Amino acid sequence: MPLSDRYSILFEPIRLGPKWAKNRFWQTPHASGFGSDHPSSQAKYRETKAEGGWGVVFTEATSIAPEVDKSPAPLARLWDDGDVRNLRCVAESIQKHGALAGIELEYHSSIGYMTEGRGLLARGVDPVPGDSALAVPYAGSLVELEVEDIEELKQLHVESALRAKEAGFDLITLHCGHAASLLAHFLIPYYNTRTDEYGGSFENRIRFTRETLHAVREAVGNDVAVGMRFGVDTLDAPFGLGDRGIRQDGEAPQFIEAMDDLVDYWDLVIGGFDWAQDAQSSRTAAENHEAKYVAHLKSHTAKPVVNVGRFNSPDTMVDVINSGQCDIIGAARAAISDPFLPEKVRSGSIEDIRECIGCNICVSRDIGMGRIQCTQNATIGEEFRRGWNPELFIPAANKENDVLVIGSGPAGMECAMVLGKRGLRNVHLVDSASVLGGSINWVSKLPGRHEWRRLIEYREHQLSKLKNVEVILNAEFNAEEALDYGAGIIIAATGSYYTHNAIDPHSREPFGFDTVCAGKVLTPEQILRDDAFVGRRVLVVDADGYFMGPGLAELLAKNDHQVTLVTRGEHIGEYLRYTRESSATLRDLYALNVEMLTQTMARPSASGGVRLTSPLGEEVREFDSIVLVGPRVPEDGIYKGLRRTRDLWAENEISAVYRIGDSVRPHLIAEAIFSGHRLAREIDNSNPALPLPFIRERRIIGTESEELAFEAAALSVRS
Amino acid sequence: MPLSDRYSILFEPIRLGPKWAKNRFWQTPHASGFGSDHPSSQAKYRETKAEGGWGVVFTEATSIAPEVDKSPAPLARLWDDGDVRNLRCVAESIQKHGALAGIELEYHSSIGYMTEGRGLLARGVDPVPGDSALAVPYAGSLVELEVEDIEELKQLHVESALRAKEAGFDLITLHCGHAASLLAHFLIPYYNTRTDEYGGSFENRIRFTRETLHAVREAVGNDVAVGMRFGVDTLDAPFGLGDRGIRQDGEAPQFIEAMDDLVDYWDLVIGGFDWAQDAQSSRTAAENHEAKYVAHLKSHTAKPVVNVGRFNSPDTMVDVINSGQCDIIGAARAAISDPFLPEKVRSGSIEDIRECIGCNICVSRDIGMGRIQCTQNATIGEEFRRGWNPELFIPAANKENDVLVIGSGPAGMECAMVLGKRGLRNVHLVDSASVLGGSINWVSKLPGRHEWRRLIEYREHQLSKLKNVEVILNAEFNAEEALDYGAGIIIAATGSYYTHNAIDPHSREPFGFDTVCAGKVLTPEQILRDDAFVGRRVLVVDADGYFMGPGLAELLAKNDHQVTLVTRGEHIGEYLRYTRESSATLRDLYALNVEMLTQTMARPSASGGVRLTSPLGEEVREFDSIVLVGPRVPEDGIYKGLRRTRDLWAENEISAVYRIGDSVRPHLIAEAIFSGHRLAREIDNSNPALPLPFIRERRIIGTESEELAFEAAALSVRS
Repeated sequence: MPLSDRYSILFEPIRLGPKWAKNRFWQTPHASGFGSDHPSSQAKYRETKAEGGWGVVFTEATSIAPEVDKSPAPLARLWDDGDVRNLRCVAESIQKHGALAGIELEYHSSIGYMTEGRGLLARGVDPVPGDSALAVPYAGSLVELEVEDIEELKQLHVESALRAKEAGFDLITLHCGHAASLLAHFLIPYYNTRTDEYGGSFENRIRFTRETLHAVREAVGNDVAVGMRFGVDTLDAPFGLGDRGIRQDGEAPQFIEAMDDLVDYWDLVIGGFDWAQDAQSSRTAAENHEAKYVAHLKSHTAKPVVNVGRFNSPDTMVDVINSGQCDIIGAARAAISDPFLPEKVRSGSIEDIRECIGCNICVSRDIGMGRIQCTQNATIGEEFRRGWNPELFIPAANKENDVLVIGSGPAGMECAMVLGKRGLRNVHLVDSASVLGGSINWVSKLPGRHEWRRLIEYREHQLSKLKNVEVILNAEFNAEEALDYGAGIIIAATGSYYTHNAIDPHSREPFGFDTVCAGKVLTPEQILRDDAFVGRRVLVVDADGYFMGPGLAELLAKNDHQVTLVTRGEHIGEYLRYTRESSATLRDLYALNVEMLTQTMARPSASGGVRLTSPLGEEVREFDSIVLVGPRVPEDGIYKGLRRTRDLWAENEISAVYRIGDSVRPHLIAEAIFSGHRLAREIDNSNPALPLPFIRERRIIGTESEELAFEAAALSVRS
Repeated sequence: MPLSDRYSILFEPIRLGPKWAKNRFWQTPHASGFGSDHPSSQAKYRETKAEGGWGVVFTEATSIAPEVDKSPAPLARLWDDGDVRNLRCVAESIQKHGALAGIELEYHSSIGYMTEGRGLLARGVDPVPGDSALAVPYAGSLVELEVEDIEELKQLHVESALRAKEAGFDLITLHCGHAASLLAHFLIPYYNTRTDEYGGSFENRIRFTRETLHAVREAVGNDVAVGMRFGVDTLDAPFGLGDRGIRQDGEAPQFIEAMDDLVDYWDLVIGGFDWAQDAQSSRTAAENHEAKYVAHLKSHTAKPVVNVGRFNSPDTMVDVINSGQCDIIGAARAAISDPFLPEKVRSGSIEDIRECIGCNICVSRDIGMGRIQCTQNATIGEEFRRGWNPELFIPAANKENDVLVIGSGPAGMECAMVLGKRGLRNVHLVDSASVLGGSINWVSKLPGRHEWRRLIEYREHQLSKLKNVEVILNAEFNAEEALDYGAGIIIAATGSYYTHNAIDPHSREPFGFDTVCAGKVLTPEQILRDDAFVGRRVLVVDADGYFMGPGLAELLAKNDHQVTLVTRGEHIGEYLRYTRESSATLRDLYALNVEMLTQTMARPSASGGVRLTSPLGEEVREFDSIVLVGPRVPEDGIYKGLRRTRDLWAENEISAVYRIGDSVRPHLIAEAIFSGHRLAREIDNSNPALPLPFIRERRIIGTESEELAFEAAALSVRS
């Protein structure tokens, strides 16, 4: 298909100082979990974005010196020649697809553990602990930098910029955002209490940044573009810095004007202590949610401006450019969810865009110091180690097979789709429900979770295009019927369910509500899917630890129930802390007068009430309804039924039976989709039930790096 | 000195099946933070223990298959040939000093993030979430293993044992302790709810372990010893598993008898969900604290028995062997604190043993997924990357210098000691106090912290032996006097102090108590060091987040004060969660009726009371005393004074002025000691103020491993 005129503006080349980006798509810096110590994984991760059409692809925030070491967080570093070698591989991988390679340099002034750079001390604008001291236990204070340190700190920036140039990067961004870097701390009055020529007045507070930018430009010369990522608003208290911060209608435009002669581009973000303000989930932020902070700032600069805001829609992208809000579409999460987004716009395949649902699983894996993951895109992070490309599907060696996929939830949809793309002869995706999507249909009814329906919408469209895939709804199945169906491969994707007689994972005893107060007990399905009657005084017992317990509490409170949310855990919705949704969720639940009890065990009392036991004591309370949230139980009847009749498989010409998703282990939606994807990618291997080995990128004694690289190349060819 | 007869029993060789350990010192498995992906660091770490005389040196708990992946925790793995290569290097490094190399194999059934082994699913005895689900957010359930999986799981154990043999290990331990491994879960009724031949009766619950041990022995043959680490008591609820667990007077002896024909040795431990029960800090557990659980068990086995219990004292070691409690002295923390402990006993240098203080900083770094650290032993974890050996001190190139060290706290003592050992001409360690040790003298008065005095005692003895070091007490110093003192090198180790006008790190505003309720405000020093009067109703404001706030609350409550402990953080004594002291501390504070308020801001009210603000609301309360704990302020007057008079250094023949420890950045005692040690190790480099680069063991594109190894060798020679 030809490039639609509607979107042609997105594909205009953009000048960035001495460089030209081929289009307006800009993959902003974000953590992958690979840093610079896993160079091949990092390179292939970024390369896939370049291959997908992003005109500019950045690495992640990169530490410029060992004294600002975020270990054990696996972030990139540019400290020495080894890092140059590793990051050169990343830059070259990006450039070979015609994209510009960018790197974000940071002197991180909020302290990490410093567990590797021990003995080196991070210097700060003033000696009060940085804000990460709140998140990183006992991180300690920064060392106040003395005036005689200033030149040395500028030099650290210059040296790392020179290393970045040596590694071949086209664009060098200095980070002055997320209230995280030394540059930002100089600027922000909350952090800068200095009384010398680097503190106090606006002129003084920008002095270090101007001097540093000047020195960096001088050093790298005229063939590398230098820009700045700038946090234009540090938001209201208590989430932000209030009137001691930077405001979009305060010093932000002044700062942009004061620096404009020294930068080739601006990458504008928002956020105070918590960078997740910039990467809010879809529960609290819609597409282009930063417009109100950034829209007017472009008028203060002569340089191209990048905006972010989980842009998924090319129509929105065109609008924000035409409206003069910005010049360039920045994206982290949208590029994770669909690395080929630009290419799909270019080729007119708008409906094929795999839109980010804003669940922040990617964020959660960064916070948890793991590798990146994505609910929508199962291939993310698997580019090198498993050789997966999100848009490349090799015909299966066993494609002359008919496959029955039972259950059209996330795992089943994904598996049927990938099998379809790999050319299996006939793929039947069957479900007893009248619609595709399984649990997503009712989970997405929780407040703020409607975007999760994109999980269905994307797959529904893909499935509709695959001639070899048939979706059959309203079809009840049992093991016998599956056995007789005529498919050579059967895949159970039957999901999981909440139950009235759940086991408390904190004691491995049954909760026991089903026996003592049976009439009052409800499961999440009964409320969200079946519209069950809920009494006025509701107890939500959260034995799950993520969005479902708090989400139901919010929904019920909004519907005028009097809600108590109880968990045996230390925190309400523990995993929301990792998706960075915790603060806003607690704020909303407090506002709705939801009573929240942590470290509290709930058990039925003989009287029909509920005994609540915490370290502070015990009380018996009366509730009209009790909602028991988790643990879920795998729905594995069909799978186990088929396994029991194994001796009948041959006569029914069944070669294999697999199970995927929650029916194996109820867990994240991301894991269910991954499970379906993985099976379909490996359906033609010798034992598809077990994942193939993946490359573990690491130092191996007595091994030359080339062996690893060869292994990777071999794997890339494979799929 | 000759080997004293008193201790000769510790040096008797011990037979372990086909192997002979040269003595009874056994470094038990424990995490280093190096795993198998940082082989040279791991190898040198373990090698130093072997060099120090441990007859048996183990690696750490090692994952036997990718389906039990604890990432992002950096633990060892034995999954493939690359791991064999890397761990062979570890085994050989241990063996070259005459020690036996051991490895502990584990099928970890409590789930980690599985962020690397994604797509693989850990199998469990039953499908209820493992206990790490409590610690690891949203870890999900195990997949219940079906009977047809049993052979495969045994085979995973066998294959990893074969790889361990191939890597050259002498001893293979199967882990059945800490309620963590599949073997333990089969045994323990709390975890095993199976109804087939692997659940129910004792015979059934040990079936898998017997079959696995049998298969492993058969596979590895007769030239490798096979033993078991067994958790003999899973303790009382709520910290332990209560009557659903294993008890030392219940099934533990039965288990030992049932397995005895299949093992060559027993490594006995205790603990339920929380392995820190086995590694309790000195706040709750004295040396040999496990005796009451393990002492009688030796009578149930014909094989050698290893015990642990933070054994530091060779007299205790002799006693536990002579009393028949055990045959072998197991140690993790004592071996971290002093890798040369056995050698010091052998050579009669008992007074030189650097005894573990039981602070659990080592544990905290494991929990925090960092590299190992130790308060007593600054060299731990630095063996490879900095080439440090705890007992090897190279004469300094600039030893013809006199050094003045001002301040005899942890940093100053350590620095003076290492400078002394490196042969500096004259080292004067001066302090205004009448005793050595600085803040340790009063910090150690907190309940349960008396063992921390060992920080002073060890160094005091070492200093007393160094003829070139003079300790001068009761000596007040200011910058001018230091300038005139006649030392060519001056080192400020002046510590830090708590203050009445502290800045709240959570808002970077002054608390303000000093202005409004000045007469009521106390610092920790005033209470612990100066015996200040404290009123009945006390508010302890913890802006520090570790032991001091809760410790003072405990002390004051024990002295019949009515105590409220308030923190703006989410948890009481946040960092105690990392040292694994949190549960017991909270238990004790609850028992003492200490009121604990988290997420609560404390500010003076105009009336002279205290306004306490939390997400739940605000109240004003009256207190008789307010104890303000942190943040501490560096005591850097002398250092800054000397810096200001830099132009006078030459005429006073001063070549350099440094500062170390809390006077740079108030932090962990471990960091203060490290700071002093590091400066002294590098005092003869070109710029001792900045640490030398260290080897960052990692994969570097286009680099052969040998380059790294060479770099290491060069560094080892250096110091």
